[in-house]
Amino acid sequence: MSQIPPAPARPAADGPEASARPGRAGPDPAALAEGVLNGDRRALARAITLVESGRADHRALALDLLERLAPARRQALRIGLSGTPGVGKSTFIESFGLMLIGLGLRVAVLAVDPSSARSGGSILGDKTRMERLSRDRAAFIRPSPSQAELGGVARRTREAIALCEGAGFDVVLIETVGVGQSETLVAEMTDLFVLLLAPAGGDELQGVKRGIMEIADLILINKADGDLKPAALRTVNDYAGALRLLRRRPHDPDGFPKAMPVSALAEEGLQKAWAEMQALAEWRREKGFFDSRRAEQARHWFEAEVRAGVLARLAADPEVARRMQALGAKVAAGAAAPARAAAEVLAAFDARG
Amino acid sequence: MSQIPPAPARPAADGPEASARPGRAGPDPAALAEGVLNGDRRALARAITLVESGRADHRALALDLLERLAPARRQALRIGLSGTPGVGKSTFIESFGLMLIGLGLRVAVLAVDPSSARSGGSILGDKTRMERLSRDRAAFIRPSPSQAELGGVARRTREAIALCEGAGFDVVLIETVGVGQSETLVAEMTDLFVLLLAPAGGDELQGVKRGIMEIADLILINKADGDLKPAALRTVNDYAGALRLLRRRPHDPDGFPKAMPVSALAEEGLQKAWAEMQALAEWRREKGFFDSRRAEQARHWFEAEVRAGVLARLAADPEVARRMQALGAKVAAGAAAPARAAAEVLAAFDARG
Repeated sequence: MSQIPPAPARPAADGPEASARPGRAGPDPAALAEGVLNGDRRALARAITLVESGRADHRALALDLLERLAPARRQALRIGLSGTPGVGKSTFIESFGLMLIGLGLRVAVLAVDPSSARSGGSILGDKTRMERLSRDRAAFIRPSPSQAELGGVARRTREAIALCEGAGFDVVLIETVGVGQSETLVAEMTDLFVLLLAPAGGDELQGVKRGIMEIADLILINKADGDLKPAALRTVNDYAGALRLLRRRPHDPDGFPKAMPVSALAEEGLQKAWAEMQALAEWRREKGFFDSRRAEQARHWFEAEVRAGVLARLAADPEVARRMQALGAKVAAGAAAPARAAAEVLAAFDARG
Repeated sequence: MSQIPPAPARPAADGPEASARPGRAGPDPAALAEGVLNGDRRALARAITLVESGRADHRALALDLLERLAPARRQALRIGLSGTPGVGKSTFIESFGLMLIGLGLRVAVLAVDPSSARSGGSILGDKTRMERLSRDRAAFIRPSPSQAELGGVARRTREAIALCEGAGFDVVLIETVGVGQSETLVAEMTDLFVLLLAPAGGDELQGVKRGIMEIADLILINKADGDLKPAALRTVNDYAGALRLLRRRPHDPDGFPKAMPVSALAEEGLQKAWAEMQALAEWRREKGFFDSRRAEQARHWFEAEVRAGVLARLAADPEVARRMQALGAKVAAGAAAPARAAAEVLAAFDARG
């Protein structure tokens, strides 16, 4: 499917990108693109490392690489998955991923975990948690980038999705632990959003973040096996009831969002959950919501990049940053009016060199 | 309480602001500030008109006015109120407002309705809906500004709140019909957020926007009177159950968020609802959440103003706007990569005159 001619693994020193690499030689976008399009997992891993790089010269190479993949126009089903630690998310991803592979599909797993920089490791950092899946040739697992800043994680994850699609994966699972705004962010880059929960015992609180109901397409109550099965079914009913209290969204067919039981451990309910995801995606495709959502997401991504770029110019000016800091403290203390303080910062922005 | 010397109703032509008024003479901030601080409702109305003005010279006068009120450091309890048409919101505001006035309090009502520009009129445009309240000297009712753009409505409402506080009101009710993001926006400028709902009949859907659970402090089921009372009490139970499934927020005492019945028509449950609002505000004051929330809100407002100002500079450049438009369409159609398209727009921004 690749239209791109073979290229050396390293670009010649006089290649068009040479001047953009002040330090050691960077990766060659043409060679990386070819590897990715051929489904080479090592090339994919290196390509993701390139888009995650903060270096300005790497950024130019990353844009080049992404543009080389775009003409292939490959699409995966992008599924967002959220669940707090303890609900069995790793076990679910492993069972669900292997089930998909059993159906002949190739599965990539990416993580968005803005807390990983703080906690010192991504939830997916330890691949041994998904040992069988990570060893399978039809799977690709990538831990969350170590980035404290959510906006940076968002850009890199969006680009990693594009790379996985270029590599021909059929399903891209983007998982998040649901810290701060990360679920909304993942919902904005996926076609479907799945929330994984554990059974609640009696009156026990579930601790579902309130905003999550806004974005969930499917609520899966895990651990619906053994002793926990009755509690799991009860929890399914509770959520089904709560979902019925909420307004129907135009992009949902009858019966969605839906709550259902699964057992990742016993590998039960996974095919049924997959059938629901496919039915939902199919309905949205037929009604045009699927493509319109992707078009909207792409436009928002573009606009977010522009805004981020302009705001980066704001932050990059030391005089502006100094005033932001000082005036922000004054405003919080009630010693300066927000609108007046903002006008001062903007004057400094206009006056910058 | 005013520290500001009397001033003529119109500034002298050679006054310091004169050069900022190219057209007809603008209002005098010093005189307006004095009127507002004296609790003059006509001065307050004119002051709000000034902050709502889009004219650059008016903006300078508005900032001047706001700074003249700040030293008085007057505070009202800011209550956000949301409810879709049909739940009896006008009747509730009238009954609740008159009840507060009966307790010796002064009440201002502002509206945030981003749809009013489209629908051709604010929900509060017709004051006859709250006839008794609007005629009361201890009340001030202001319809939503006719602004399609939510950011503009936000700034003007924040500033109108500051003006009402300067005028010595004890409670400022900010109501919204809950279109788009307006509830989140109102929550970000208030101390408490109240959701007003109608009783649900049997399995009937309530149509509550999903994100609302994130921000509601108190859910009031209205029309808990006559035939609807049993349905109202059932609905209270349904929401109490749904609220228990959600995670406790650090700024909530035990039992909050809370669902309870009221009848605006029969004037029942209003004092109880007010007692709950006071208890919640008091608890947050004691724990420091009240002041820290206000400080955060002020800082966010400041930062939002800075961002809005920088983004306005982006939009104001015709070449940048042209490229944003053209490239956004290409990105949505899949014909341009978002990151590359953004880089092009940013290059045009840097090159602007």
